[in-house]
Amino acid sequence: MSGHAVVLGAGSWGTAFAKVLADAGRDVTIWARRESVVNTIRETGRNSEYLPELRLPHRVTATGDASAAIAGADLVVLAVPSQTLRGNLADWAAFIDRDATLVSLMKGIELGTTKRMSQVIVETAGVAEDRVAVVSGPNLAAEIAAEQPAATVVACTDMDRATLVQASVSTPYFRPYTNDDVIGCELGGAVKNVIALAYGMATAMGLGDNTKATLITRGLAETARLGVALGADPLTFAGLAGMGDLVATCSSPLSRNRTFGEHLGRGETLEQAQTATRQTAEGVKSCLAIRDLSRMHGVEMPITEQVELVCHEGANPRLAMAALMSRKPRPE
Amino acid sequence: MSGHAVVLGAGSWGTAFAKVLADAGRDVTIWARRESVVNTIRETGRNSEYLPELRLPHRVTATGDASAAIAGADLVVLAVPSQTLRGNLADWAAFIDRDATLVSLMKGIELGTTKRMSQVIVETAGVAEDRVAVVSGPNLAAEIAAEQPAATVVACTDMDRATLVQASVSTPYFRPYTNDDVIGCELGGAVKNVIALAYGMATAMGLGDNTKATLITRGLAETARLGVALGADPLTFAGLAGMGDLVATCSSPLSRNRTFGEHLGRGETLEQAQTATRQTAEGVKSCLAIRDLSRMHGVEMPITEQVELVCHEGANPRLAMAALMSRKPRPE
Repeated sequence: MSGHAVVLGAGSWGTAFAKVLADAGRDVTIWARRESVVNTIRETGRNSEYLPELRLPHRVTATGDASAAIAGADLVVLAVPSQTLRGNLADWAAFIDRDATLVSLMKGIELGTTKRMSQVIVETAGVAEDRVAVVSGPNLAAEIAAEQPAATVVACTDMDRATLVQASVSTPYFRPYTNDDVIGCELGGAVKNVIALAYGMATAMGLGDNTKATLITRGLAETARLGVALGADPLTFAGLAGMGDLVATCSSPLSRNRTFGEHLGRGETLEQAQTATRQTAEGVKSCLAIRDLSRMHGVEMPITEQVELVCHEGANPRLAMAALMSRKPRPE
Repeated sequence: MSGHAVVLGAGSWGTAFAKVLADAGRDVTIWARRESVVNTIRETGRNSEYLPELRLPHRVTATGDASAAIAGADLVVLAVPSQTLRGNLADWAAFIDRDATLVSLMKGIELGTTKRMSQVIVETAGVAEDRVAVVSGPNLAAEIAAEQPAATVVACTDMDRATLVQASVSTPYFRPYTNDDVIGCELGGAVKNVIALAYGMATAMGLGDNTKATLITRGLAETARLGVALGADPLTFAGLAGMGDLVATCSSPLSRNRTFGEHLGRGETLEQAQTATRQTAEGVKSCLAIRDLSRMHGVEMPITEQVELVCHEGANPRLAMAALMSRKPRPE
């Protein structure tokens, strides 16, 4: 594989993805905001804060100098927190090679603008949309770091570019499928965090597998409704970036959004849950933007609505769950 | 609710469904093949072998005399093992009221004929297909017996009859949705048992949540492909009787098919797994009929194929799983 790749962001998914790129045959530089993370990766070959078990391949190095790492990279992978993308990318845009492919690993919707991450990239980096690819699927980072077999979707409006990215991240344990539905893949990834919050609440309340399976099914249905309104292909939601990602995230006790939901389901306030988990789960922020999108497009999203009420309006999660379960019977 | 209902078959789902019918306002008679089960239900109000925790409502009674119980029932619920339906129903058909609705709770495909349960009912009872309704969804019996909130699908080609059955089984903890896609609902219920066997194998092998979510996603995709070839509505598979039932069955350690798959995944033979679980899981039989259907209709069903090889040809489950995971990357 020619050219080198840069991964901007050293969270768990960015770090695991750097390993995938290296194992698929590339030299990779991870950019981390904090100097301590850069130094640890350089000195120990590990990102001890996010994926302590993972010994990074020798082809992976780290830097604190994003612009130097971006210059000359043919693959620029964006893995920063969703709400910081616009600010970060504004600083980096000038250094991106004119032929480079931009790959988004981010799963969120920008607050205020209600834009998907690929839209923010196009706008902020000033690139054509066919240069942006999105990677999304049932991809819990810790499992990929451990080389547990996983599949994913590489979505790009330009299928040739999707195929190119596919080749850049194919390894025996990581199998990418191509797709041209960027909207559907991004929405699947963003809304699933909100549904995982609801799933976590249901788990903490001791609700059974029938109830939780219903929540997942209805959650995917409301995701698909919004997706179709935004121009996505409904079939995307039945695939790895829809159902696959949602099921993996809800099933795994490693999932941050599910875990955060469990804290809320035990009756903790948003602040208590943030203190306990030392972070704000992505779905807590995204649910506001997704609710805005659903209203703008006149799409009913009852689960998202209840999650937003619990997270931001202090609603009682038991009442929220009861409200979801008592909706009127009708044709499916 | 006028009229009384009979539930033919005293397994865990038949028993829990009798409770639902009683709680929705009907007198119910459960027919059990074994006298000991009839006597225990009559004397203790419990089916101690299948759902020992459940105290049946007073409106539920039991009998060993199917024909007497059927005569005069306006709702005839069939809950016998799939492969025994034809033989049983041949004996009962003459006693069924000419206006009665026949409700199938069974999730299998008949071996040899490759017929769905509603087709066997139409053929054997000599009734029109619009008199047969199918109930299918994320409905683990033990959870419904415990009144954990659950939703389900009532499917019938006659929507008026579906609505009638819906009203007969609506309770605060059990919410039925109507649908006219009998084929899709029955196939979803049948193939999910086969996918749950594969999921159990993967679980026993220690595969991660990414891998298992991929298995569920691909499993539903092959179910939908077969369904569409048979005339089902593809949307049914995204609903409660498709994805919902599949996710609940795979998630639950209570699921018989998943548990059976775990035995196979630990390297036990079919006979050893049967001895350990004291039964043959439905998917073990159905996978043969589903494989036949897939060949007749030229539909690729790689998971079903591997499950059949493990169950009936002595294939090694590790190699079967590896074969599934190493399929060539391509567009989704």
